[in-house]
Amino acid sequence: MIYLDNAASTQIHDDVLDAMLPYLKEQYGNPSSIHRYGRLAHKAIEKARKQIASLINANSSEIFLTSGGTESNNMALWGIASKKPSSKIITSSIEHDAILEPCKKLVKSGFDVLYLPVDNRGVVNLDTLKNSLSDDVCLVSIMFANNEMGTIEPIAKIAQLCNEQKIPFHTDAVQAVGKTPIDVKQLGIDLLSISSHKINGPKGVGALYIRDGIDIDPLILGGGQEHGLRSGTENVANIVGFGKACEIAKLHLVENISHMKKLRDILIAKIVNEIPYVTLNGDIENRLPNNAHFTFLGVTGEDLIIKLDEYGIAASTGSACSVHTQKASHVLQAMGFSHEQITGSLRLSLGVFNNEQQIDETVSILKKVTTELRSVSPFKEKYSF
Amino acid sequence: MIYLDNAASTQIHDDVLDAMLPYLKEQYGNPSSIHRYGRLAHKAIEKARKQIASLINANSSEIFLTSGGTESNNMALWGIASKKPSSKIITSSIEHDAILEPCKKLVKSGFDVLYLPVDNRGVVNLDTLKNSLSDDVCLVSIMFANNEMGTIEPIAKIAQLCNEQKIPFHTDAVQAVGKTPIDVKQLGIDLLSISSHKINGPKGVGALYIRDGIDIDPLILGGGQEHGLRSGTENVANIVGFGKACEIAKLHLVENISHMKKLRDILIAKIVNEIPYVTLNGDIENRLPNNAHFTFLGVTGEDLIIKLDEYGIAASTGSACSVHTQKASHVLQAMGFSHEQITGSLRLSLGVFNNEQQIDETVSILKKVTTELRSVSPFKEKYSF
Ligand SMILES: Cc1ncc(COP(=O)(O)O)c(C=O)c1O
Ligand SMILES: Cc1ncc(COP(=O)(O)O)c(C=O)c1O
Repeated sequence: MIYLDNAASTQIHDDVLDAMLPYLKEQYGNPSSIHRYGRLAHKAIEKARKQIASLINANSSEIFLTSGGTESNNMALWGIASKKPSSKIITSSIEHDAILEPCKKLVKSGFDVLYLPVDNRGVVNLDTLKNSLSDDVCLVSIMFANNEMGTIEPIAKIAQLCNEQKIPFHTDAVQAVGKTPIDVKQLGIDLLSISSHKINGPKGVGALYIRDGIDIDPLILGGGQEHGLRSGTENVANIVGFGKACEIAKLHLVENISHMKKLRDILIAKIVNEIPYVTLNGDIENRLPNNAHFTFLGVTGEDLIIKLDEYGIAASTGSACSVHTQKASHVLQAMGFSHEQITGSLRLSLGVFNNEQQIDETVSILKKVTTELRSVSPFKEKYSF
Repeated sequence: MIYLDNAASTQIHDDVLDAMLPYLKEQYGNPSSIHRYGRLAHKAIEKARKQIASLINANSSEIFLTSGGTESNNMALWGIASKKPSSKIITSSIEHDAILEPCKKLVKSGFDVLYLPVDNRGVVNLDTLKNSLSDDVCLVSIMFANNEMGTIEPIAKIAQLCNEQKIPFHTDAVQAVGKTPIDVKQLGIDLLSISSHKINGPKGVGALYIRDGIDIDPLILGGGQEHGLRSGTENVANIVGFGKACEIAKLHLVENISHMKKLRDILIAKIVNEIPYVTLNGDIENRLPNNAHFTFLGVTGEDLIIKLDEYGIAASTGSACSVHTQKASHVLQAMGFSHEQITGSLRLSLGVFNNEQQIDETVSILKKVTTELRSVSPFKEKYSF
């Protein structure tokens, strides 16, 4: 199998699993327990917290562990909003559902939500943002990079606009962490969501970075873990694995980025040059190093990924979650794409474990598959395939 | 080390870890992905859901996966309450903080919460419950068994009272699952919280059973996983482990209960008979098979567990979470205990991996430790130790 769905989830790094194993075996203490077992578990968590903080240049006291990127996003939105009832939230029209769905619920609870438009490359409109910032805005939440077509947003500029007006700024950096250098201090980010399983760590664990001085309400209450901001017995093994994944990601950041970028550029060049009626979507410059997102005219993305799967290639149409909702991509819609363009979309997302041979193989299979599908396409005449 | 803090967390069963490992290695797909990796992950989750359901005689469509017992409790309370603003919730005064803290927050949002009193064995007052049930009650939430002193509540009767008035009944069964037979259908339970790490499964995963026909709002929103009731990429490996732990717990339920009960009864008899000024707390009949909770007069529970730890025994004062809040046990307070009785409390909680030799050793060390501590106790004169 050739796995090209790393934006959906990634393979756990061997060293990550090795770091986790003691906490799945003999070190089974509850970190809240006072005895040796408890203390060892507690220590392991604090080490992981440092590793996570270090990847984004935060203090470890600013890292709050969660069950994943989705919970981190929910926690940021509810946590800030509940401090200022009936105020306004600014986000973008291309956010992940883990931002959009909580926003919908906040609207029902009396909040006002503004969805910033994006251009045809998926870049949010800074002028609209600038003109919308006012005293009644409790939070701005704009993703660092988009999960479908990989566009990296102008985060430094957005943060600066928010900082100037003292409005808390949150960014969903689930796709960006480990794929681009992130320094929360330098960028002026107040809150940031991370998910472990997108950076070769285990699933079901993530973190919310909350800058010292930012006050939020907890979403999940109980025993008072995570300084009362996130109760529940800690997922020790997964947290340890997440920490290790962050450490590895930091250590190899530059080489990983250049490795993925190289593969991505080969992949894009070959596909666009060798397969007709294919376009690359998103921004070419400000783009995740591991994202290649295309529109294949005359075929559906679903048919493509099912065929690719038969040939041993794991790919996606764009959003792993769309399978639950069966709706057309809201991201591509916001970018002004036609129904046909949206239907034909294919995302190939690279990971640190992919190699050039896999890319070559993928392109030749993709050629074959596209030809097969187009030979029976209802658009056969239109494009004279 | 002799581990007698199984109410705080338990060792992962070898077969559970074996079941998890493929999902920490080669099976790293996102369950929402359409390709082979995704389908295999999805299938693994659905198998686990069946195993979890089977332990409590639920349908697998009634099991919703969460990040643990704390989240399950929060999800049940918020999920039901938000359907009926400003209504009333009935719970008990001895619940875990994962119930009490969300209740406090609900009070701030305009809900009315009634905390049922308990007797000196920790049994909730059914008359008060009966007299308090009315149309404006949106939910009754009473724990199945208490985490500190192990009393099992009259759940069948409570459920019946609620069923008669068509009021949804939730029970926090985190301590009870795997330690007493639970049949949600027969008992008439509408919602039930479980946590994996209390039954020899991994930490950071749990479930909320929601009876078919009960309608709740989600707490965490996003990609629409768990039929929209709990979004977020699923913690596949931990869910698989949780499922396996449930399967094993079901298979060995009768023998596990009798094994733990036997050890518990030896432990209680020896301690009460061989160490002076010690009383057993909680209910003797309706008690978790793995719980032994005592008051040692003239010493503090903290000193006891620190000394026991030095001698290689892992124990607790009662609530693992109290370490974050540093407050006196609200459970023992509700049972009418004096400050001195509360201070001297020690919980020894057994697990399936404990054996009789460990019990004997624990008692002899406990004798020694108690004598040492009492020899310097400020209560030395009072009790003429
Ligand atoms: C941009 C973005 N935000 C949030 C999430 C959700 O994170 P998790 O998978 O940890 O729930 C994802 C992943 O699906 C994502 O791509
Ligand atoms: C009765 C009870 N409810 C809830 C919880 C919380 O569950 P978890 O540890 O999975 O967060 C615990 C465990 O600490 C418990 O004993």
